[in-house]
Amino acid sequence: MLGARGGWRALRRCASLPRAVRLRVREALGAREPAEAVRVQGWVRSVRSQKEVLFLHINDGSSLESLQVVADPSLEKRDLTFGSAVEVQGKLVKSPHKMQNMELQAETIHVVGPCDIWSFPLKMRERHPLEYVRQFPHLRCRNNTLGALLRIRSEATASIHSFFQDNGYVHIHTPIITSNDCEGAGELFQIETSREEKESVEKSHFFNVPAFLTVSGQLHLEVMAGAFTHVFTFGPTFRAENSQSRRHLAEFYMVEAELSFTESLQDIMQVMEDLFKTVTSTVLSKCPRDVELFHKYIAPAQKTKGRLEQMLKHKFMIISYSEAVEILKQAPQTFTFKPEWGCDLQTEHEKYLVKHCGEVPLFVVNYPYDLKPFYMRDNEDGPQHTVAAVDLLVPGVGELCGGSLREERLPFLESRLQRLGLTDAYQWYLDLRKFGSVPHGGFGMGFERYLQYILGVDNIKDVIPFPRFSHSCLL
Amino acid sequence: MLGARGGWRALRRCASLPRAVRLRVREALGAREPAEAVRVQGWVRSVRSQKEVLFLHINDGSSLESLQVVADPSLEKRDLTFGSAVEVQGKLVKSPHKMQNMELQAETIHVVGPCDIWSFPLKMRERHPLEYVRQFPHLRCRNNTLGALLRIRSEATASIHSFFQDNGYVHIHTPIITSNDCEGAGELFQIETSREEKESVEKSHFFNVPAFLTVSGQLHLEVMAGAFTHVFTFGPTFRAENSQSRRHLAEFYMVEAELSFTESLQDIMQVMEDLFKTVTSTVLSKCPRDVELFHKYIAPAQKTKGRLEQMLKHKFMIISYSEAVEILKQAPQTFTFKPEWGCDLQTEHEKYLVKHCGEVPLFVVNYPYDLKPFYMRDNEDGPQHTVAAVDLLVPGVGELCGGSLREERLPFLESRLQRLGLTDAYQWYLDLRKFGSVPHGGFGMGFERYLQYILGVDNIKDVIPFPRFSHSCLL
Repeated sequence: MLGARGGWRALRRCASLPRAVRLRVREALGAREPAEAVRVQGWVRSVRSQKEVLFLHINDGSSLESLQVVADPSLEKRDLTFGSAVEVQGKLVKSPHKMQNMELQAETIHVVGPCDIWSFPLKMRERHPLEYVRQFPHLRCRNNTLGALLRIRSEATASIHSFFQDNGYVHIHTPIITSNDCEGAGELFQIETSREEKESVEKSHFFNVPAFLTVSGQLHLEVMAGAFTHVFTFGPTFRAENSQSRRHLAEFYMVEAELSFTESLQDIMQVMEDLFKTVTSTVLSKCPRDVELFHKYIAPAQKTKGRLEQMLKHKFMIISYSEAVEILKQAPQTFTFKPEWGCDLQTEHEKYLVKHCGEVPLFVVNYPYDLKPFYMRDNEDGPQHTVAAVDLLVPGVGELCGGSLREERLPFLESRLQRLGLTDAYQWYLDLRKFGSVPHGGFGMGFERYLQYILGVDNIKDVIPFPRFSHSCLL
Repeated sequence: MLGARGGWRALRRCASLPRAVRLRVREALGAREPAEAVRVQGWVRSVRSQKEVLFLHINDGSSLESLQVVADPSLEKRDLTFGSAVEVQGKLVKSPHKMQNMELQAETIHVVGPCDIWSFPLKMRERHPLEYVRQFPHLRCRNNTLGALLRIRSEATASIHSFFQDNGYVHIHTPIITSNDCEGAGELFQIETSREEKESVEKSHFFNVPAFLTVSGQLHLEVMAGAFTHVFTFGPTFRAENSQSRRHLAEFYMVEAELSFTESLQDIMQVMEDLFKTVTSTVLSKCPRDVELFHKYIAPAQKTKGRLEQMLKHKFMIISYSEAVEILKQAPQTFTFKPEWGCDLQTEHEKYLVKHCGEVPLFVVNYPYDLKPFYMRDNEDGPQHTVAAVDLLVPGVGELCGGSLREERLPFLESRLQRLGLTDAYQWYLDLRKFGSVPHGGFGMGFERYLQYILGVDNIKDVIPFPRFSHSCLL
């Protein structure tokens, strides 16, 4: 997360500088050599006053770990409390403690901003439950767990961009406001101008047509995949699902990619697996302590860490939808929904399949034709029998990614749209098949679901920066 | 844009591979050595049939340049036309032409997808005006200019993420749907569920409160700047401005950053300038031909390229708002809006100032207190005289970035909110000043305005991936 170079260069230079060198906590903790005249700024995480010495822990969000400050008790003052903002100047020295590398011997402590600890909802040395801190959307980022989450989100975001950039993908900002509902699935949010504006436009739509918040950038990416062989997007998507579920959000992030000149569904699955493993390895190596916090305190029962390491070592399993149904039919347990060829896999089915295969990520391919949207490619293994669709199921979460080959053959697409009465709405989509149409496919991965999986977080509301409830407070 | 490694490794391996190695056009053009058994896929940009030889140009979006294919006329077929998708297999050899490094000697040409050239709106070897291609939102990415734009957008996006990542910033996904209107400026889009859903909720708001599309992530970033010293966001923002202007979009992208423990406005200006120069250098070095296309054909009068190189070499100029007003008052020209201390700078004023200072980027600092929103920091240079605000003006575009120090002092903020009658709405914002408040500030930069500036594009609708009009067609 931190540009180490800047820090080290600063450290080397510090002898000749007239003023103390400013270091971030992460830089100070990772320093190889002691240094004179260092300045560290941050918020006080603990104050412990002893007869001979005053101990502080300072955190600035650059790492989970705080920097220990050792000071003469004479430097203590009334407003130097938990939660206050301080600037400490002094010497960076090797710490006598095993648990940390460096500590700061304070020469001066300046309280930049005091903290009204009586009304501050976070308390010193307390591990607040996630439900408690969710009540304070403007303050909860000063909690360790939320701090760790945000560093992990940031690293994962950067890693997703790098993965695609390194593999020659062109990033596309697909529209947020659109008249396209993508596949007719998912409840939509509609856009209007705010009340005052509405009157002046005299009840006509701002865009002349009804406009919605995007549910997927897939169709827009497909347009781009007619000129670039590799494209991706990573942006917000929306569903107006009227539910208070622990699995759904009104606003969430999705990574989507499209590839042209594909040869089989395998091409799509390979990118899904590579993306998944690359981002996870990066997060594990860049934020080990942050991830550890989740595995230790939030999901201790799930042994998430060992599971992730196993996952990274092995190739993901692949079974067909038909095989999946057979496995479910032979299962020794009773399901609420009876497994039957032609029916959707329910979460209970997905969980059983993942368990049956050894609690590892699992690709399920070739779903029934009638279950899937019009754009998925007919496998021609019977009259409208299956399509080249794939879902990636993971332990604890169920479906994490979905993808397919897209129907690139004009006659197949024309007859399917006609049967569905969608020919007029998708004329532009048919058009794409007239001008150099190529086999192509793509997938989407829910970013919050991904975070839930790798961190073992049960409630999806705990992996977003601001705790938005489906039906209550917005910040 | 392309992971060169993959390509080179593939080239080295090709001798031992049973099947021809797939190369992207960019990789083939950049190859150092000839290679046997190479496969290239893409769309035909030109076909020229001579008695003895057939020439094709193949483009796959990986670069502006197409790969020349040389083939025996016997390989020509009826559906091998402009716009068709092909896979060509053959030998990669040094080109005898000065203008290109390598060319492909075809052994086989497979037409993957034919093109109905009579109805295809793009024509071979024609430079279509941007207004013309804007009519075909689903096909215009196959035009050279739009291809170049999208590669540049992609590189600039990656560079913005890297810049902040390398400098230790934490990336935050600030909310898109929010009940916060940020500063009361700009018309808002309101969110409702679509009609069917609306009835079931019986006319109550989906979120219990009115919800809007974000106009800025600033206040959410400020929350985060109370725990992380450096945060940024880069996402869509919205304005329901009822205008058909060439300068405004309903949906556009904004880069925003907040820094804690700032010492002066200079800290903010330094980051603005560094970001601007880093991203521009990256784009110029990674997409030289794409940028050249714009400077040559879209903005030839503006001599944009030389201007950009000059800009990168020099430190940006800084003048105060008061100095700016003096310069304007002494200007030998008449303005539509008479320049007067206390009035907003109009576009005509901004353009004059930039010209007066030598057509270079120009920071204007310390604006009148009453012109700016409540959160900007009082400079205390008189009773509510000026605030620590900064705008970055650039030639041709005017205001590109805006930023300020934020008022971190509780009493100042309390009295200002009270005077404005906003105390209740911003109770949470006041709260942030009670718990370890620190001097901080930040800025925002419009991504499309930035692209307009570096590419010399007049109409902002020509720097977005899909041509959305304020009041007409959406894709």
